[in-house]
This record gives sequence, structure tokens and C-alpha cells, in this order.
Amino acid sequence: MIVSVPLAERAYPIHICSGALSHLPDLPASALPGDVVIISNPTVAELYAPALEAQLRARGQRVTRFEMGEGEQHKSLATMERAFDVLAEMRFGRNGAIWALGGGVCGDLAGFVAASWMRGVSFVQVPTTLLAMVDSSVGGKTGVNHPRAKNLIGAFWQPQAVIVDPDCLQTLPPREVRAGMAEVIKYGVIADAEFFRWIEENLDAVLSLDADALSHVIARSCEIKALVVGQDERESDIVGRRAILNYGHTVGHAMEAVSSYGALLHGEAIAIGMMVELLLSLQLGAIGEEEGSELLHRQGLLFARCDLPTQVPSDLSWDDLWAAMALDKKNRGASVNFMLPSRLGEMVKIENVSEAAVRKAAVMSGLALSVGE
Amino acid sequence: MIVSVPLAERAYPIHICSGALSHLPDLPASALPGDVVIISNPTVAELYAPALEAQLRARGQRVTRFEMGEGEQHKSLATMERAFDVLAEMRFGRNGAIWALGGGVCGDLAGFVAASWMRGVSFVQVPTTLLAMVDSSVGGKTGVNHPRAKNLIGAFWQPQAVIVDPDCLQTLPPREVRAGMAEVIKYGVIADAEFFRWIEENLDAVLSLDADALSHVIARSCEIKALVVGQDERESDIVGRRAILNYGHTVGHAMEAVSSYGALLHGEAIAIGMMVELLLSLQLGAIGEEEGSELLHRQGLLFARCDLPTQVPSDLSWDDLWAAMALDKKNRGASVNFMLPSRLGEMVKIENVSEAAVRKAAVMSGLALSVGE
Repeated sequence: MIVSVPLAERAYPIHICSGALSHLPDLPASALPGDVVIISNPTVAELYAPALEAQLRARGQRVTRFEMGEGEQHKSLATMERAFDVLAEMRFGRNGAIWALGGGVCGDLAGFVAASWMRGVSFVQVPTTLLAMVDSSVGGKTGVNHPRAKNLIGAFWQPQAVIVDPDCLQTLPPREVRAGMAEVIKYGVIADAEFFRWIEENLDAVLSLDADALSHVIARSCEIKALVVGQDERESDIVGRRAILNYGHTVGHAMEAVSSYGALLHGEAIAIGMMVELLLSLQLGAIGEEEGSELLHRQGLLFARCDLPTQVPSDLSWDDLWAAMALDKKNRGASVNFMLPSRLGEMVKIENVSEAAVRKAAVMSGLALSVGE
Repeated sequence: MIVSVPLAERAYPIHICSGALSHLPDLPASALPGDVVIISNPTVAELYAPALEAQLRARGQRVTRFEMGEGEQHKSLATMERAFDVLAEMRFGRNGAIWALGGGVCGDLAGFVAASWMRGVSFVQVPTTLLAMVDSSVGGKTGVNHPRAKNLIGAFWQPQAVIVDPDCLQTLPPREVRAGMAEVIKYGVIADAEFFRWIEENLDAVLSLDADALSHVIARSCEIKALVVGQDERESDIVGRRAILNYGHTVGHAMEAVSSYGALLHGEAIAIGMMVELLLSLQLGAIGEEEGSELLHRQGLLFARCDLPTQVPSDLSWDDLWAAMALDKKNRGASVNFMLPSRLGEMVKIENVSEAAVRKAAVMSGLALSVGE
């Protein structure tokens, strides 16, 4: 199955196919130039790199592997500098391609390396986590973290192709599959009530890694993301169409930054962020009381079925969280803006939200858990 | 005087005006958002930052200054990291603008900071050296050096505006004015025989910093560069139209890399590079013997009048130079390509040039000096 990301001259295909890693699909010529550097981490590389490398070598590519550490703390300028040293050492030229084999950390860093090396070389995403398959590998956002906030440094850089092999999820730790479901559920809330209902009905099949259910989840998520990204590639649209993808992320990113990128998986932070931001929407009246309460219940129930957390950890300092939100790149200037659900499948932009309102919603997330269960 | 860089939705004006720094011209709104960070170096900042900052503050901007070291060795990922720390500390948002006040080193680094912070913020160039005014501030190439080669890491990022005040050149060390003339002479050779003749006739006025002569030199250079950049913004054109700007740079960059960015000014390296590459053109028959010899004489004579060097320093190792050329980003894969003069004002692309041919031209540059004198 192929989902297209509609970006005019930067359009590219997302191939979603069981076994795609052992039998590469047809790719654009730009994805397969002379030199390929695969950026991966040791765990993923051990499982999947040899088969991938063998196929690329059989096609005549010169293939080199660069392994980086696992976890957000390795998505740093320091890791990029190591990667640049390897590229310089091998005289990697403008006609090379960087392939990212791994999760979002790996794809984000590899994409920024591809964007920056000689001001831009080809890039291919091979996401191996559910989160990367449904979110970070689509849309062209690349970058690294700053110690003070996530993804502050980066570039928009579209891949030439994305290759998704749902079979990879069989080896993914269950906690990571569940974390990826937070972003999948997000797509339902922000843009597709029908898909939200489908998830409610088919969640057990997805969590048991049923191949058809996984393929549907990945394809529909990619379709929604591709549609949104196609309307507003650089998030510069003043109507903020791409900003709907940030649901749960203002609060979620702040928690990740404050907990030093490690205690919470990204999807776990987003699940909590979606609960807090939905509570905020209710509190501000951006969603009707009845609809809001029902959505809060249904969203919380899905998270509970995925074993995802739904309340802000009590050991995080509120002042630190608020400082991180104010720094978050989605906020123009000093005010904090949010995209919040106005009903299931629709979002509305609320500007200049006060610290007190967000704090109240964060405190209430403890309550929301009991609502959801 | 305003020169426009024709880049569709990324078009921007180059304001060339005596006194522009003490009376800022009208600028696009995007150049003057809430926060402005001026990236400069201590020498330039002391001379020009206070007046600039006062005007920006009078317009209601919050202005912060970031000072970096002088010289290519400070155009590094390490300096960028320090700049990012400052931006994070002050919660610099997406609606901020980075202003570069200084020479090419400062502009290249500041531009890559602007391109990367939150995946891109506004950028304004205020070049204070002749080299930056006629070359590096126009065209959107930004980046930092890798220890193994110049400008290997970067982005294409167009400024919202360029502000050129030729009066700045009164305080520039004469050696830097003369180095800047190498790029000016280059524009004549690659694209405009008439301009080349104008330089021959008016060089004394330019070197004595006559205001009218300087303004003409800057404006015509910017026009030529803008025209070329407008045809091929990302240097991706397979016909290689933008690549003509690289005349003298393959050899020049290699000398800069091998001499550890410091012994030679960029313009000095380019002057030597232009002599070597013109000798190479003669040797390969890309330019006719008569025309080539005449151009070699005239180009060498102009460099001599500017006190610019014209021969490869004898203390540089050939093997190191060749390795740097093969790594240079203009070379796709292992072969080394050159854009060489085919006559005064016209260039031709020559691919797969052998090491022996380039080495011979480098050795002959010693001879060329005596031809030029």
C-alpha cells in the first residue's frame, strides 16, 4: 500500500508493506545514489541492518553504517558532530543518501544530518517503531534537542521515500507499541471521528499486532498526517492548519524536557498532554460540556486500555513545566497558544492562555484518570 | 540604490546606501519582529552595534547582542551551540529575527543559526567587509566549517533583507578591502567583460575608497550574483548555472582548509585559486591559447595592483590539497569537476579533471605571477 505525501515537487511515497525490509519496494533514483549511510542504533541495527545493507550492496551502493545511542539524550548536536566526522572521513558527497533505520530519535537526527551536510543530500526514512511510522517519519520535521527544550534546532527536510514494514513491530517492546498508539488516537481526535470509533472497536487486534489492523492504523494515520502537512508544509500557515498536529504536545514536550528526556516515552508524555489539553478545552469552554465530558471519557478509556499514563507525574515542578511551555517553539513571543478539540474530529485555536488555567488543567489530570477508568 | 534578488516568494532587497547603518532603510515587517539578536564580533560590534541597536530599540524591538570570535576557526558547530544557549536562555521565539553584523564568517554562522532555530526564523544581513557585501551576504548560502573542509555543514536560507553601508569600508583593514576585490574581479571574468574593463580603468579609485566607485563595484557585483542565484537557488541545476560562482573556489577552499583557516584571507585564497584554475583552463584547452594568455595577464595584473597573492604557497602539501579538493562539496562522488573560463565573461564546465593536471597548474602558478607582473 502506498500513501502519497502531496508536496508538489517535494512529493514522496510512503510504502507500507509487510516484509518491505527484506524486499525493498521500487524507489526513486534519488533515494539510491552512489553512497548510502545508514544511521541506526545498536539494537535496531542488529535486527534489521544486515538484510537492508545486503540489498543495497546488491544494487551497487557503497553502504556505511553509523550507530548512535538510544534515547532522546542522544538526539544532540554532539551526536551530529560525530556523524559529520564519519561523513567527512569517507568523503561522502552531494550525491549520497542518508537512510534512517530506527525510531523517531534516529529519524529526526538523521534527517537534520541529511539537511545540513553540504546544505542538503537525499534522505530515506525506514521507521521501525509505531511512533515513527505514524508520526515522525512523515512531514519533514527534523532536528535535535537543546538541553532546555525539545526539537529547538532543526530543519524542514523531506525524505525521498518512507519505507514502513509493520513486521518490525513484532520485535518492538510492548511499551513502545502502546506509546505509539497515543499519536494514533490523536489523529482520531483532531481530524477523524470515524477513525476514532474504528480504534475503539479494533484496539485489541492492534495491540495483539494483527497484521491487517496494524496496516490500517499506520496507513490511516499517515494519510491524515500527509493531508495536514500537504496544506501547510512549514507550519507557517497563519490559520495554523499544521498546528492541529500539536494536540497534546505543548504540555507533553514540556514534561519530556523537564524530566530530562528519559523517564517518559514520547507517546506517554503525549497521552498525558492530550488529557491535560482536553481538560483545558473543557475549562475554557472551547468544547461543550457534554461533548467534552464524553470525549474525555472515551479518550481516557482508550489510553487506559493501552496502559498509557494520563496524569502529570507529581514529582515534576510546575514552574519548570511552565517555563518549558513558554519556550516551546509553537509559541510566538511570550504568550502560550493551544490547538484544542472543539468536538471529536475538530480543533480550534485558543491564544494567550494563562498560566493559571493550564496549571488547573494539569492538576485536574489526576481526576481525569478516574473518569477514564 | 536597491538591487533585488529575484527568488519568487523568497525575493528580497539589497539596500546599498552610504550611511545606511545610521539611518536604516525601510525594511519588510518580517525583518523587524519582536526580538532581534545581533550576531557580531567584538571589533565590528564596537564600531557599529551601538547605533544599530539604538535605532532598533527606538522602533520597539528587544535587542540582544551575541559576540563571536573573529576568523574562520570560529565558524564552527561549537560557536553555534553557544549561540543556541543564548537564544534558549532569552526564550527567543519563532517571531524573532537574527541580524548578522560583520563579515562573511559572521554572516554564514548567523544565517545557519537563523535557519536552524525552531527550523527557521527571520534573518537580516548587515555585511561590513567588501567580501561579505559583494559575495557571502547574497545568495542564501549559510553554514559552518568542518575541520576537514570549509562550509560542509549548512543550509540554504535567504535573508529578509541585506543592508550595505559602503562607509563601513573606511574602517576595514586595507588588506581585507584588497581581498574582497578578488571576488569582484571574479564577477568580471565569469559573467561581464564590460565590468572587468571598468575595474581595470577604475581600480585606483576603488582602492582609495572613493564612494561612487565603491557603490558601483558593490551594486554590479550584487546584480551579477543575484542574477545567477535567481536562476539556480539551490545549486541543483544540472546545467550548473550557479556553479560559475565557484571559479577559483575549488583550489581556493582547499588551500584555506589545508592552511587551517587563518594564514590566507578568503579573497587571497580565491585570487590564487583563480590563477591556478585559469592555468588549468589553458592547459586543458578550455580557453584558446591567445585569449587565455591575455586573460591570464590581465587577471594577474589586477591582482598585482591589489597586492593579492597569485601562487600556491610552497609550504602546503600537495597531497593534503588534493584530498581537500576531492572532499569539496562541489564534487559529486570521487571525480573533481571545474567551472573554467572559456573566454572573458564566459565559463564552461569540465568534468573528471585528473590530479596530475591540477597539480601542474598549481606548480605553474609560480610562473603565472611573473606573467602577471
